[in-house]
Amino acid sequence: MQLQSVGKNILGRLTDSAESLKAFLFNYETPRVITVHNYRVGLIYRCVQLCIVTYLLGYVFMWEKSYQEFASVESSVTTKVKGILQGTVIGQKNRKDVWDAADFVFPAQETNAFFIATTVIHTVNQTQSECAEDPNVSRNGIICNGRRDCARGDVAVNGVKTGRCVPWNSTVKTCEISAWCPLEVDEPPSAPLLSSYESLTVLVKNHVAFPKFGVKRRNILDSINQTYLETCRFHPSNHPFCPVFSIKDIVKLAGEDFMETATRGAIIGFGIQWNCDLDFNIDYCRPVYAFRRLDDKDDQIARGWNFRYSRRSVDHNGKDRRDLIKLWGIRFVFNVSGRAGRFSAVNFLLTIGSGIGLLGLASLVCEFLLLTCVRPPHRNDLIQQKFCKV
Amino acid sequence: MQLQSVGKNILGRLTDSAESLKAFLFNYETPRVITVHNYRVGLIYRCVQLCIVTYLLGYVFMWEKSYQEFASVESSVTTKVKGILQGTVIGQKNRKDVWDAADFVFPAQETNAFFIATTVIHTVNQTQSECAEDPNVSRNGIICNGRRDCARGDVAVNGVKTGRCVPWNSTVKTCEISAWCPLEVDEPPSAPLLSSYESLTVLVKNHVAFPKFGVKRRNILDSINQTYLETCRFHPSNHPFCPVFSIKDIVKLAGEDFMETATRGAIIGFGIQWNCDLDFNIDYCRPVYAFRRLDDKDDQIARGWNFRYSRRSVDHNGKDRRDLIKLWGIRFVFNVSGRAGRFSAVNFLLTIGSGIGLLGLASLVCEFLLLTCVRPPHRNDLIQQKFCKV
Amino acid sequence: MQLQSVGKNILGRLTDSAESLKAFLFNYETPRVITVHNYRVGLIYRCVQLCIVTYLLGYVFMWEKSYQEFASVESSVTTKVKGILQGTVIGQKNRKDVWDAADFVFPAQETNAFFIATTVIHTVNQTQSECAEDPNVSRNGIICNGRRDCARGDVAVNGVKTGRCVPWNSTVKTCEISAWCPLEVDEPPSAPLLSSYESLTVLVKNHVAFPKFGVKRRNILDSINQTYLETCRFHPSNHPFCPVFSIKDIVKLAGEDFMETATRGAIIGFGIQWNCDLDFNIDYCRPVYAFRRLDDKDDQIARGWNFRYSRRSVDHNGKDRRDLIKLWGIRFVFNVSGRAGRFSAVNFLLTIGSGIGLLGLASLVCEFLLLTCVRPPHRNDLIQQKFCKV
Repeated sequence: MQLQSVGKNILGRLTDSAESLKAFLFNYETPRVITVHNYRVGLIYRCVQLCIVTYLLGYVFMWEKSYQEFASVESSVTTKVKGILQGTVIGQKNRKDVWDAADFVFPAQETNAFFIATTVIHTVNQTQSECAEDPNVSRNGIICNGRRDCARGDVAVNGVKTGRCVPWNSTVKTCEISAWCPLEVDEPPSAPLLSSYESLTVLVKNHVAFPKFGVKRRNILDSINQTYLETCRFHPSNHPFCPVFSIKDIVKLAGEDFMETATRGAIIGFGIQWNCDLDFNIDYCRPVYAFRRLDDKDDQIARGWNFRYSRRSVDHNGKDRRDLIKLWGIRFVFNVSGRAGRFSAVNFLLTIGSGIGLLGLASLVCEFLLLTCVRPPHRNDLIQQKFCKV
Repeated sequence: MQLQSVGKNILGRLTDSAESLKAFLFNYETPRVITVHNYRVGLIYRCVQLCIVTYLLGYVFMWEKSYQEFASVESSVTTKVKGILQGTVIGQKNRKDVWDAADFVFPAQETNAFFIATTVIHTVNQTQSECAEDPNVSRNGIICNGRRDCARGDVAVNGVKTGRCVPWNSTVKTCEISAWCPLEVDEPPSAPLLSSYESLTVLVKNHVAFPKFGVKRRNILDSINQTYLETCRFHPSNHPFCPVFSIKDIVKLAGEDFMETATRGAIIGFGIQWNCDLDFNIDYCRPVYAFRRLDDKDDQIARGWNFRYSRRSVDHNGKDRRDLIKLWGIRFVFNVSGRAGRFSAVNFLLTIGSGIGLLGLASLVCEFLLLTCVRPPHRNDLIQQKFCKV
Repeated sequence: MQLQSVGKNILGRLTDSAESLKAFLFNYETPRVITVHNYRVGLIYRCVQLCIVTYLLGYVFMWEKSYQEFASVESSVTTKVKGILQGTVIGQKNRKDVWDAADFVFPAQETNAFFIATTVIHTVNQTQSECAEDPNVSRNGIICNGRRDCARGDVAVNGVKTGRCVPWNSTVKTCEISAWCPLEVDEPPSAPLLSSYESLTVLVKNHVAFPKFGVKRRNILDSINQTYLETCRFHPSNHPFCPVFSIKDIVKLAGEDFMETATRGAIIGFGIQWNCDLDFNIDYCRPVYAFRRLDDKDDQIARGWNFRYSRRSVDHNGKDRRDLIKLWGIRFVFNVSGRAGRFSAVNFLLTIGSGIGLLGLASLVCEFLLLTCVRPPHRNDLIQQKFCKV
């Protein structure tokens, strides 16, 4: 008897479970609603919905493409500068020299940048010796009358004070320093000393990859043939995909005056942008070049761009000698940016989900309006129908 | 009387407010629903829900880990190349020299890159003088018959035309140029001139940080001891964490032929990837190395990788001399990428929220199905029960 | 008759359509709900809602500013090092030299980095010849007793074995190598050889741009005048916007001992962070500097930072000579990071949408609680009212 009852019980429960499962699987619950005929609330509801849908489709989907996933670019840039400059190098007997790329591109190779010297001052045959400090570069405290103005061992701008006070020129005496003498005459140039910049060109090779999508592109498009490559010059509208750039054109496209730029030096950003929609044909994935000056034309200190380096040698007496070279010039810094977008199911559905949540906003707004806007006679009806107490 | 009435009023309102607050706090509104017993709609509803939940849990959570917040990597790479090359340098009396890293790594230090010279052409003792332009490197217009073919002051490839027409060799005459003479003989090499590349190794030290999470890692794992460091060579499967790489192996792992690469030069990307799930033990946060050639093996112009630099000197007559050095070689460019992910409450909840919104999709679909699929006899019942007019 | 009927039909349908449209536009459907008076469920419902709203407003909106869209920074850094070092260079007759920036900054210009030499070893007048290999730098196998220990052509650390066994010093014999001889005496320095680091300063110019928002900033703020620029030194709290940094201060701020760092070399990260909330005044968008050592103080191999380069020359006999220079020093690597945020309608609404979806979580929880927590007498009522079968 008991076993039978237990069996019945279990059977009953299983039947119940089966029923529950059946109900769970095959029943669908639809909410009971009240249709309120109210012009204002109805219209507002549809308007809010329309706004949200328009915004979602138009802005979020079409414009922002939030159904895509994006990857940033990996890039490699190499450059080859060609051309000949003619010029006088200050400090070098005022000869007129012919310079080629191995002379005016310094250093010879850089990562994502290249520098072209436009003005050069040589200070040749400096040796470790003593001379009068330059009163033009030193801050106060270098012009002296006697030994007590020059504390031995103090650091001046160009060297270390020896303690003596010596004549700088016929009228001024300055502290003597132990330094590389003779000192450099640091006069900012009034014009670039090299000429014929027209012949300067740079070939830019940029290989990019979007590893996330397995896509590789290069700025020399497949449609470009060798003859075109050898003769073309970049022009933003006529030759937007020519990889050979005239240096003068770059400076002009950055909105700068070439002569002013070449005189004091400058840093110019060489932007290469790759914005690729991989949902379209890969051929539309092309570079866009943009140039802009990065430093400030009106900087208060250290305007423009220059730097010094030294060339050491040992003379036949075994004494160290040094040529100090100060270069002004234009430094081009590459900035390869860009992103590629491709349809992503996750982002698509997350956006849809968030959008549907947003549609709930319309209901929230209207529920509130309904309970405050509907006038008394209907209001009671509505409330009675809508709410039901337990 | 009036005061009493006002008091009652206020009291009444306060009571009302208290009632409202109580209702607001302690009442819960649950929607009234109709349970529709319809196999098709019920099944579809559960299926859509199941799909969404599976997708959310499986793909969004497990695979994409969208419950994490991510930070990108900050990196510092230093390298030390070791090894000895033996070779003949073109232009240098064909001596067989022994080169060490101070010779073939140029420049001595670079940010995120290093270059190893594999073929070298020296053009020694150039001076500023006049010589016949090389007809092999110049575009048309350099071969001449007389003075009128050579306009004085025109810029050629290697210098500036003097206006004279001089013999290049016994059969050809070209315009004379003012340049660094004698000119470089620019013949692409047929083989790399240095040998015994087997001994070349590079020690790579990569320190990375994820400042957002306060995590620092380095590619020399703590578990590696000094003996291992001194003898190991990187191998993708046997020694994946050895920081000493054979140059030959890198080129092979990039899928390139070493001899071809060394002859014409190349640019090889040295990828170090750090993908770290900080929800797990930090020890699993390890570098993965990958190598690929960045330039195009079949480039139409300027194939491979080479550059020139010059070494200046002054001879005993005070005349400038220059050695022009053209280097072919392999440039290795580091690309440290990676991201770390860690559980983020914000992202977790935003994803959940978006997912619940997405679940609303199931209701949207089924509401539509219900009102179109349910057949006439039930349909009227359903509509009567569901909708109630006010 | 038939035509009339067709006309009526169409008219009827049009009227129907018009009715439907009117219903669609002007009717609003509000769900019918049951108000359950249950303390527990009601309170839980409000609490969950409160938590979600607090979290959304407080954390997501205020703290994470997820209503903003963000853009990363584009940066250009230039540096100018000034100062004088006095020191003895090992290998150079132990003279006391005065070095300026053109000597101790090497290479003269780098992208996003600069290097200051603190210890220098010169090995002068090396020539391609033969000498005994240094047993201190070579791994085992270099100390020999006779010819058979030295296989001709084998690559040692500094050169290629000639096959001979020659005395290294009075007690030890090593294999002879063909190399640049005499070999460098590679003894790690016990102290930096240059002194008076106090005078070393670096002027850092950092121009940043957020191209997405069209915003440009520089680290030399507009409010800074020239007098201040010429005299100020960076201090984290007193002069946080002075762009002139004392080298010694940087090392100290990175938490390192200057003398230890200068002796063995180091790599120090020079962080410039731009975190800009463009919803506020642009003047609050200012750089924050941070310094930290990037390499590991306790590295097992190649501790610190040093590198070698060579200076080639040809002597009067036409023989190649080389000075090998080994530099220890501090390499400063710039790391400009930062992001700018600005109100974005898309992100604002997507966050709101996701938040409303999240509020649905409260309903989900409470629906479940309701059907499990409400006790039998009310439960039946509730279920009868809530569910209605069709």
